[in-house]
Amino acid sequence: MPELRKDPITGRWVIISTDRGKRPMDFLRDEVVAGDPKNCPFCPGHEAKTASELLVYGRNGGGANTPGWSIRVVPNKFPALKIEGELDREGEGLFDKMNGVGAHEVIIETPDHTSTMATIPERALEDVLWAYRDRMLDLKNDKRFRYVLIFKNHGESAGATLDHPHSQLIALPIVPRRVREEVDSSWHYYDEKERCIFCDIIRQEMDTGERVVAENDHFITMTPYASRFPFEMWLLPKVHGSSYENNQSTMYASLARMLKDVLMRMDAALDRPAYNFMIHTSPIGEEINDHYHWHVEIIPKLTKVAGFEWGTGFYINPTPPEEAARFLREAKIAATAKK
Amino acid sequence: MPELRKDPITGRWVIISTDRGKRPMDFLRDEVVAGDPKNCPFCPGHEAKTASELLVYGRNGGGANTPGWSIRVVPNKFPALKIEGELDREGEGLFDKMNGVGAHEVIIETPDHTSTMATIPERALEDVLWAYRDRMLDLKNDKRFRYVLIFKNHGESAGATLDHPHSQLIALPIVPRRVREEVDSSWHYYDEKERCIFCDIIRQEMDTGERVVAENDHFITMTPYASRFPFEMWLLPKVHGSSYENNQSTMYASLARMLKDVLMRMDAALDRPAYNFMIHTSPIGEEINDHYHWHVEIIPKLTKVAGFEWGTGFYINPTPPEEAARFLREAKIAATAKK
Repeated sequence: MPELRKDPITGRWVIISTDRGKRPMDFLRDEVVAGDPKNCPFCPGHEAKTASELLVYGRNGGGANTPGWSIRVVPNKFPALKIEGELDREGEGLFDKMNGVGAHEVIIETPDHTSTMATIPERALEDVLWAYRDRMLDLKNDKRFRYVLIFKNHGESAGATLDHPHSQLIALPIVPRRVREEVDSSWHYYDEKERCIFCDIIRQEMDTGERVVAENDHFITMTPYASRFPFEMWLLPKVHGSSYENNQSTMYASLARMLKDVLMRMDAALDRPAYNFMIHTSPIGEEINDHYHWHVEIIPKLTKVAGFEWGTGFYINPTPPEEAARFLREAKIAATAKK
Repeated sequence: MPELRKDPITGRWVIISTDRGKRPMDFLRDEVVAGDPKNCPFCPGHEAKTASELLVYGRNGGGANTPGWSIRVVPNKFPALKIEGELDREGEGLFDKMNGVGAHEVIIETPDHTSTMATIPERALEDVLWAYRDRMLDLKNDKRFRYVLIFKNHGESAGATLDHPHSQLIALPIVPRRVREEVDSSWHYYDEKERCIFCDIIRQEMDTGERVVAENDHFITMTPYASRFPFEMWLLPKVHGSSYENNQSTMYASLARMLKDVLMRMDAALDRPAYNFMIHTSPIGEEINDHYHWHVEIIPKLTKVAGFEWGTGFYINPTPPEEAARFLREAKIAATAKK
């Protein structure tokens, strides 16, 4: 019998096929393999093909926009939002609009075209996480913005248009609806119980263990009880923290270790699938609070979203999260590759 | 400058690229063409390949599950929900679940494997709309259900797994979140203004005309102000009506005419794209009301949904709805094909 499960944070119901759950080999997957770097605008030596860099790590001497970097952050050449201008909020009869003011940046994670977040060294991944933080802190100084979203599209079927390892950032003049819902709902829970709902979930998941994928000193990764997608994972700090950018500095090394570990597990269990991840953190101006718990949502791209999902806003997940967690826990990742 | 637009019903913000809007030819599309009917379980003569029919139109004599039908409704062979059993609502620590009880049916729209909803005669399409209604009314007698969702996935990239023209129906023990949001929001609007928000939008859209795709005596089709997707369309009754299944019988012929018209426009403007549509109607037990306005949402599958959309719950639409409406209005559809 399939199960209907409710996500305690968003109130969203998901249909979980518990009878004959789809195993990793049951999905038609496109293994993500990087193509020819010849015309790649993100490769060293091609710096002129991007807009001028906003942040760079690792360069010892050498001018701006020349090779020698380990991480580069540049404005997106085809931005969804424009950085100049005022919001000019305006009505149009019944409707509301404002100028599409915002930042849209690309974080080039490594000079190495064919590596991935799962294969770069842990130390290099930690630097990427620091670059996220540095850009968030900088953009928060702009009074027009209410939210900075970090996300990654890996592989063409996850929406990536370039192979070279990169993530993206969008700074927005509004708090996105999905984040607002999570924040509001966790506030209501806190208001009633004086506990963070995410902390409560983490405690329960660590007790039962069946949906835990991996954990280390500071972080835990689990497949959520009402996973929308097969092999969806949430990566959370074990101790309450409301914003990504306000962590103790030792946390980023720990996060890099955890993220690399679970991305390697995903690569091993699902043969290097396309995936998206996004960081959910508290909105600007309400960073420090007791109710919202920042986290990373990781979604391998294994299924298509069709009419049923669009029409109802809820999802059919063919793989119970308990089984997904087991496959990911048992995935063979080489000990040497973990460094 | 791109625009941020807010959907007045759901409160969802959408980024609309107004500068260089993508035109139909800018999208990489897969033209949907039906494959070989040899092993098609929905073709006449293959009735034994489906579960036993629940409803049939057009059969004069002949036994159940034999050829001679014009429309057949059968249980889905791989149902997302199971029809037998009780809900057995249950807690699991913090979490809530219930049995995945529900109906999952397939409406086989025509015996003709290679036709589509845009190419079958208007009269045949009207019968499909009646079949939707008949199944909804029947399922509403089952006290376990709170909602019946009709939807269609056309083409592989829209999630269809079979080529033969068909739609689907799911009866659910809960009101889906997206519908609940629309109903609640329109209720709040009504509570404040004593007017239906959809009726207000229709009035404003008919005044300006710039987002109107087509209209007839009873229906209007427009591209919504805050369209999530390029060439998204909403088809609504012009006069307030809260539920699909409670329309005057003359309405279904008019709806068939309108639906065929806009599907033909979409086929002409976008070269027979994959698409989804879904019918949004009032939940069971609250069918007759003044605040919610039933409608059909039609979404051609032209873009990929990526991390940004999943992370934020809002969308980047590269085609302003005003331009989409113009392309669809101006699409050349043969007058003879309209019958």
